[in-house]
Amino acid sequence: MDVKQAIQTRRSVKVYDPEYRMSEDEIRMLMEHAILSPTAFNIQHWRFVHVRDPALRAEIRNASWGQPQVTDASLLLVVCMDLKAWDKNPQRYSRNAPPHIQDHMVTGIRQYYTNNEQAQRDEGMRSASLAAMSIMLLAREMGYDSCPMDGFDFDVVARLIRLPQDHAICMMIAIGKKMQEPRPRGGQLDLDEVFFTDHF
Amino acid sequence: MDVKQAIQTRRSVKVYDPEYRMSEDEIRMLMEHAILSPTAFNIQHWRFVHVRDPALRAEIRNASWGQPQVTDASLLLVVCMDLKAWDKNPQRYSRNAPPHIQDHMVTGIRQYYTNNEQAQRDEGMRSASLAAMSIMLLAREMGYDSCPMDGFDFDVVARLIRLPQDHAICMMIAIGKKMQEPRPRGGQLDLDEVFFTDHF
Repeated sequence: MDVKQAIQTRRSVKVYDPEYRMSEDEIRMLMEHAILSPTAFNIQHWRFVHVRDPALRAEIRNASWGQPQVTDASLLLVVCMDLKAWDKNPQRYSRNAPPHIQDHMVTGIRQYYTNNEQAQRDEGMRSASLAAMSIMLLAREMGYDSCPMDGFDFDVVARLIRLPQDHAICMMIAIGKKMQEPRPRGGQLDLDEVFFTDHF
Repeated sequence: MDVKQAIQTRRSVKVYDPEYRMSEDEIRMLMEHAILSPTAFNIQHWRFVHVRDPALRAEIRNASWGQPQVTDASLLLVVCMDLKAWDKNPQRYSRNAPPHIQDHMVTGIRQYYTNNEQAQRDEGMRSASLAAMSIMLLAREMGYDSCPMDGFDFDVVARLIRLPQDHAICMMIAIGKKMQEPRPRGGQLDLDEVFFTDHF
């Protein structure tokens, strides 16, 4: 499948075959590609929790207003971000680069994020979402469907996955074998409503 | 090119052929696909400004610490979000759905976003970033490279593109024909450092 087809055929699917199992190799391949997505300064803010335990899935479903994909999808990922990744040994994000580049990167990181909580959060949201889209498109190519979710109680899910204090949740993604076609697209805005030349 | 190859070969490229032109058909095709990315409640918060005017590109480059891709890439997109899209005739986002679904969606939208500025902003960042990743992967398949950017003065660029007061900028993306290979990946974290089972 090419990228164009993956984009065209990706729809948010909510009904999955609860018996279907993705292999560990498939899951690992999917995630090894997710982490090739870009992030600012290569900080790689993303953190992913793969929820396998059926009891935990049931608790998360309760915190998601009963949405069936939470328990029935083959893979449930809680896509998180480390809001303080920028401040945790940032040299490592450019460790393959020459020392003067490393120094330049670390200086840039400190200038960009220090004392700027909103920039830290925005960056995490960007990074985690970029990775999320890579995951959904690659899942499509692998023959799966997906459902990005932010309809859940973030605080409850954070507690259930023991989210560290300096992390936040970006979204969840359910992935699996579709059992029911989604409804037609709800009401797409025309490109000309969202695409401008030079300025608004 | 398949999705896997697009993910593997996408790198953030900073040096572009300034003479190369993408066709209007190519740009339109790219953007028509970008807007098939998912958004919560199908709100489609993304707004894209395609900066064509060379003088405006030069001003944006000044606000981006002189980074050459701003003027030299074939396509420069300022990826924005309408923070209040949720409150602007939200029925339209499910206009193809039966009336009871439309009502349910509009109620959900109001519950989720009303008086929650952080949720509005997070949602915009998620939506715009998901579309951004679709753009970068499809550009790769089309034979182009890209550079996602947040190293610029957001306030200055907002003024230059006449960003409405209730919008925000998520990032910029430069797209074009690569003139120079990027450096090797800077220092990827191992999957096991970012991928957890059941909880942190």
